[in-house]
Amino acid sequence: MGRVIGSIEASQKNESLVGIKLMIVQQVNSDGEAMKYEEVAADTVGAGIGKYVLLVRGAGARKAERDNLGQQDVLDCSIVGMIDRFNK
Amino acid sequence: MGRVIGSIEASQKNESLVGIKLMIVQQVNSDGEAMKYEEVAADTVGAGIGKYVLLVRGAGARKAERDNLGQQDVLDCSIVGMIDRFNK
Amino acid sequence: MGRVIGSIEASQKNESLVGIKLMIVQQVNSDGEAMKYEEVAADTVGAGIGKYVLLVRGAGARKAERDNLGQQDVLDCSIVGMIDRFNK
Amino acid sequence: MGRVIGSIEASQKNESLVGIKLMIVQQVNSDGEAMKYEEVAADTVGAGIGKYVLLVRGAGARKAERDNLGQQDVLDCSIVGMIDRFNK
Amino acid sequence: MGRVIGSIEASQKNESLVGIKLMIVQQVNSDGEAMKYEEVAADTVGAGIGKYVLLVRGAGARKAERDNLGQQDVLDCSIVGMIDRFNK
Repeated sequence: MGRVIGSIEASQKNESLVGIKLMIVQQVNSDGEAMKYEEVAADTVGAGIGKYVLLVRGAGARKAERDNLGQQDVLDCSIVGMIDRFNK
Repeated sequence: MGRVIGSIEASQKNESLVGIKLMIVQQVNSDGEAMKYEEVAADTVGAGIGKYVLLVRGAGARKAERDNLGQQDVLDCSIVGMIDRFNK
Repeated sequence: MGRVIGSIEASQKNESLVGIKLMIVQQVNSDGEAMKYEEVAADTVGAGIGKYVLLVRGAGARKAERDNLGQQDVLDCSIVGMIDRFNK
Repeated sequence: MGRVIGSIEASQKNESLVGIKLMIVQQVNSDGEAMKYEEVAADTVGAGIGKYVLLVRGAGARKAERDNLGQQDVLDCSIVGMIDRFNK
Repeated sequence: MGRVIGSIEASQKNESLVGIKLMIVQQVNSDGEAMKYEEVAADTVGAGIGKYVLLVRGAGARKAERDNLGQQDVLDCSIVGMIDRFNK
């Protein structure tokens, strides 16, 4: 799980990435505390900055894209849901 | 291996995730000590909070789902068993 | 590479895991020093406790199982050999 | 995301790597701070030294190559875009 | 990228590993400094001890083997080139 902290603007990118919104996501734990690692994830749910989100990595990330946006084969991380609440 | 510490409520999620129970799992070692990393895993065995569980990541996680729940293609981590005992 | 430090007993597990021996493996370096990370691996070679073993993760882990034990699709780590000696 | 800090010259390499430009990429966060981990990535966008780049790992890295350069099957990390700006 | 620091002798191994040379590789950065993590990699290029090498993990590692040595399906890390020089 992660929290969206920004987005990136990229150029000279693989054509499969054109039109994809690329967000900067910080890993967090269920207390909302940030871990230091950040990664770039394709947004498939319209997640704004500050939102807690559900991520999928690897082949699953490409499947998320295929359903929504076409064949985005060079992705390895996608946002696939918004986290509304942590129940503990 | 991990220990279930909670669950999440998610919205605007990929349709393949609808109806899947998403648990917060903390990595543990065989002494039950928590490591700091937490992740979200789909529950396929009915694991309650506090339980030690067996996890599978990557493509295997999607296969676990396919058997039980349909084509849950955007998952990358599933709970596939309950750990009853550590023998050392 | 790792060292077997125990086994787990699991219930309510995915049916593909029935009959598989699940070992607790600690990551080690070639001096036999333990790293802190532990994981669960399916044993395909009869590795006893204390043995140094060769591990495979991901899709390769499932192939190891398929050869020996059937379609164990929800695995992501298997023991595929015993390490007799580190040559340095 | 990463920053290109150099390139490598390799010999006796797998034939699928011949003609591929291999860059040394340092992981960075969105403040441009370097994390300690470095990796080798195939360049598919003409990224020069000092540039911030978008990386893809695993099977996606091979797909990036297949589109542009042929069947580069032994790769596991590719540069697939230049990062022009971090918006936060 | 890594540096070969030794080899392992393994027995009772998966038959797909018979005849494969298994090297102990230490992760390094481009200054040749060792990181603490070590792993076992199949040698496909004849890399001797002390050499800096290019590694591929996951499915790519199996493809490297398939080209050179047959169907080595249980591997997850292969040496696919020798690094002659780091240009920075």
